[in-house]
Amino acid sequence: MSLPSESYLVGLIGSGITASLTPPLHEREADRQGLRYLYRPVDLDVVGRPGADVGDLLRAGRDLGFNAFNITHPCKQLVIAHLDELSPAARRLDAVNTVLVRDGRLVGDNTDYSGFAWGLRTGLPGAALGTVVQLGAGGAGGAVAYALLDAGVRTLRISDVAADRAAERARTLAALFPDRTVEAIAPADVPAALRAADGLVNATPIGMHHHPSLPLDADAVHGGLWVADVIYRPVETALLRLAAARGCRVLDGGHMAVGQAVDAFRLITGAEADVAAMRADFLALVAAETGTTTAAPAATAATATAAGAGR
Amino acid sequence: MSLPSESYLVGLIGSGITASLTPPLHEREADRQGLRYLYRPVDLDVVGRPGADVGDLLRAGRDLGFNAFNITHPCKQLVIAHLDELSPAARRLDAVNTVLVRDGRLVGDNTDYSGFAWGLRTGLPGAALGTVVQLGAGGAGGAVAYALLDAGVRTLRISDVAADRAAERARTLAALFPDRTVEAIAPADVPAALRAADGLVNATPIGMHHHPSLPLDADAVHGGLWVADVIYRPVETALLRLAAARGCRVLDGGHMAVGQAVDAFRLITGAEADVAAMRADFLALVAAETGTTTAAPAATAATATAAGAGR
Repeated sequence: MSLPSESYLVGLIGSGITASLTPPLHEREADRQGLRYLYRPVDLDVVGRPGADVGDLLRAGRDLGFNAFNITHPCKQLVIAHLDELSPAARRLDAVNTVLVRDGRLVGDNTDYSGFAWGLRTGLPGAALGTVVQLGAGGAGGAVAYALLDAGVRTLRISDVAADRAAERARTLAALFPDRTVEAIAPADVPAALRAADGLVNATPIGMHHHPSLPLDADAVHGGLWVADVIYRPVETALLRLAAARGCRVLDGGHMAVGQAVDAFRLITGAEADVAAMRADFLALVAAETGTTTAAPAATAATATAAGAGR
Repeated sequence: MSLPSESYLVGLIGSGITASLTPPLHEREADRQGLRYLYRPVDLDVVGRPGADVGDLLRAGRDLGFNAFNITHPCKQLVIAHLDELSPAARRLDAVNTVLVRDGRLVGDNTDYSGFAWGLRTGLPGAALGTVVQLGAGGAGGAVAYALLDAGVRTLRISDVAADRAAERARTLAALFPDRTVEAIAPADVPAALRAADGLVNATPIGMHHHPSLPLDADAVHGGLWVADVIYRPVETALLRLAAARGCRVLDGGHMAVGQAVDAFRLITGAEADVAAMRADFLALVAAETGTTTAAPAATAATATAAGAGR
């Protein structure tokens, strides 16, 4: 009748997150480690609460015995006012995706950026980081851009259909990394920028299942680039398929998704996740939800190789 | 990579309940059944909230994905105003110890009374139910008295050091069971009442570890009685030891504690608990917390026999 000495209760607060893969990713890893672990999605759309309620939910969750929360859209910035402490990265990013309850205090951190950084490091080891073009300057884009600069990118060019958003993001990041070049560019200038670039990152939603096109002109993708996507539904986007066909090294969005979960799991439990097993769980979960038994194995094989190379 | 199709998040709200045995009882039973189950004590003293906050905690818990709560002192009546629905027993008892979240609605029930009734039925099968004397008319006493009458007791005499409380309890119960005799008696009249009684139930805290005496005059306990105690710390109280020595059939408080957990587990999961295993867990947990490795096995053997007889 031996039991784990500790148990973990974790929530994910955000809109439209009922089908998030993060809860089963955490629970399956905890099962492998013999930890009692329950991870509840708290979908604001389902419970009928606005994002502004995130503070009330966190405080109630703290009192009800939650150990931690992941936080996502639309609460990653709203939550900050309700926290007792921020990690340096969360403060610099001005975004929180993980809140830990530590001795009754709410401590904010960010594993989106570290998750992408981990994916880049392990999935594309040795990738040239001189100049990178990033498409999309929204929420995910902020974490990705920060991770790229933190990883050593010298020149980062950010494009967004909303020019204001790209300019604002570039301004903020340039201030955080004063020895780098961070600039907003117009979508029309992306092809020219790519000719002199080492890498391309898609941080827009274009390429998702319900939006399955390319986020840029196909001709702009050339074999001298590495190409990363943050989308993981599907794991193999049209962009990654095109890039692979042109000889590019590619990094699918599952790496960032798994990376943020690995880092959150470590913050919550103090334990290292079995990254390869979590990656396999992730691919199985995505395959199960799409039901694409024909397409998934191909994507799995391709991306498993990238993951394997990175370990 | 098979997982249970459902998982359960349960809380216990009350004062001074951090060391409650109910959370591990539920979790161990769920482990036996392969269910993902997390049961969190929410100690109002620890989180610094008054009992009046029980409604806020329930509503937040519902939104954060809790499936159910057990409710204990001082919230068993306070909680009623916050519920959407009450079971017939909870309404009649005017006390709730279990709240289920059903389709977003908070539904109150009471497994204290049904837990005691189960213990009586299975631990003292065939016990005469003509006349019973009950000591203590407080919270636990209300559930016990209701269970006794519901089980068929014809005449119930209730004594309490607070005469008002005994009188009020007797009045309420007499109204619920108009074909029975329910009356308050003074502590001084208990010995006389016991001479004509079939059973004696202690529902006072006298006999607990920190209050290890008898709740009545020792001479009043005679071999013609069955004797039940609601105390389970220790499992074998001074009263039960005395009663057993005088030849009485006895029912320890662990039966009510396990019975309420069995009934709550069924309400929460729809599954039947392994009662014998839960009883064994209960005795092991009590023994572990007291560290009385000499006294516990004796009590275990005595009470395990009673439990075995009842199944």
